[in-house]
Amino acid sequence: MKYKKYKKEFDYSYTLGTTTTIELLLNKSKHCEIVYLHSKINNDITIKKLISLCDKNKIEIVYNDTIFNVISNKENNYCVGVFKKYNCVLEKDKNHIVLVNVSNSGNLGTILRSCLGFGINNVAIILPAVDIFSPDVIRSSMGAIFSINIELFNSFDEYKDVHKNNIIYPFILQAKTSLIDVSTPDKSFSLVFGNESRGLDKNYLNIGQPIIIKHTNAIDSLNLSISVAIALFHFCSKH
Amino acid sequence: MKYKKYKKEFDYSYTLGTTTTIELLLNKSKHCEIVYLHSKINNDITIKKLISLCDKNKIEIVYNDTIFNVISNKENNYCVGVFKKYNCVLEKDKNHIVLVNVSNSGNLGTILRSCLGFGINNVAIILPAVDIFSPDVIRSSMGAIFSINIELFNSFDEYKDVHKNNIIYPFILQAKTSLIDVSTPDKSFSLVFGNESRGLDKNYLNIGQPIIIKHTNAIDSLNLSISVAIALFHFCSKH
Repeated sequence: MKYKKYKKEFDYSYTLGTTTTIELLLNKSKHCEIVYLHSKINNDITIKKLISLCDKNKIEIVYNDTIFNVISNKENNYCVGVFKKYNCVLEKDKNHIVLVNVSNSGNLGTILRSCLGFGINNVAIILPAVDIFSPDVIRSSMGAIFSINIELFNSFDEYKDVHKNNIIYPFILQAKTSLIDVSTPDKSFSLVFGNESRGLDKNYLNIGQPIIIKHTNAIDSLNLSISVAIALFHFCSKH
Repeated sequence: MKYKKYKKEFDYSYTLGTTTTIELLLNKSKHCEIVYLHSKINNDITIKKLISLCDKNKIEIVYNDTIFNVISNKENNYCVGVFKKYNCVLEKDKNHIVLVNVSNSGNLGTILRSCLGFGINNVAIILPAVDIFSPDVIRSSMGAIFSINIELFNSFDEYKDVHKNNIIYPFILQAKTSLIDVSTPDKSFSLVFGNESRGLDKNYLNIGQPIIIKHTNAIDSLNLSISVAIALFHFCSKH
């Protein structure tokens, strides 16, 4: 058996489940190495789609039950895609989401799905951060990760040097300007969010146009994936 | 040992962690029976607050390490509150969130926290649904559950019969009206959301003012907790 339980240092990762494997095949098929199916899998319309995508892209399908005990820790998962990790570069002069030190895989996955839902296809991640290719991120994103350019940067300055033209909106509780008073700019923009526990540090008050999503005093802060979604809705909604 | 690993049929439940236990003591202290602490707990400012809340409310604190092996499945949790389950009744002529058949504990917890963040303190849940008192819901809500009136109803009709005066906004993908074209009404309102997989069924198109949160075709739907948060932001944000 060649494959092992996922670790961050691997140069490959796994999609666990048919939905995410189909998204892998639709969007990043050239990185997919093999697809494993369990003998218990239902031969329904979704599986037919998956098999036809493998045929089209000349990707081998192997029926193998024991590999599921090694790779997957979910009982009812009968499909695993194996893919080589890859790098992306953000598109210039497009709208970006910038996540500084995002640490929770569920949050990152949900954010990627929301980005895709509001037409943002470029996400910068400032390190250190959660492993973007962990199977948990992929599952939470429902495969959206394969449709989004994600680029890692060692610092916010490194990001900003490359994307000078974007208007920067840091989301920070100490900001004076409320989101509902900000209009979507004509130029491309970057919405910047901090870590789940710490938020952005106060230095970001001196960058671009800091924004607060106002909430009651009954909570300390909104969940990160919730804040990003509200910002996406406000900046990117169309009639 | 009296207490066991949580099951839905119990008439009591647990807060796992200091943050949620403090919220229990601040908001529903009369339902709290006992607080267990692990000998490894740090005697920091949060614990001092917790101990003083127990003193004030005459709630016993017991140091007991073995109970953590039974109740908690998290390694680094050193505080458990035990409380009797209780019933709430929704306030009339207030704004409500209505969750039809919500099934995921993480979603429900996140939604309760967002509600509190946008000043909605009344949540109706149409059964069948996830167990609202499961420790996972409590943890995801970060204790917000103890500040919100949650009432269970057997059907949407049962809810509507009691709260006739509220304007009903069902959130449904087949709706014609986009959220950004709707203004917050002067009267009290109810924002209604369906199950994570199925959404609301088409009958809801004939109730009140159906609304869609428009998103790209690249995803099937937004995550439930994301949709609720966007709706809360749109209906309840203040300048």
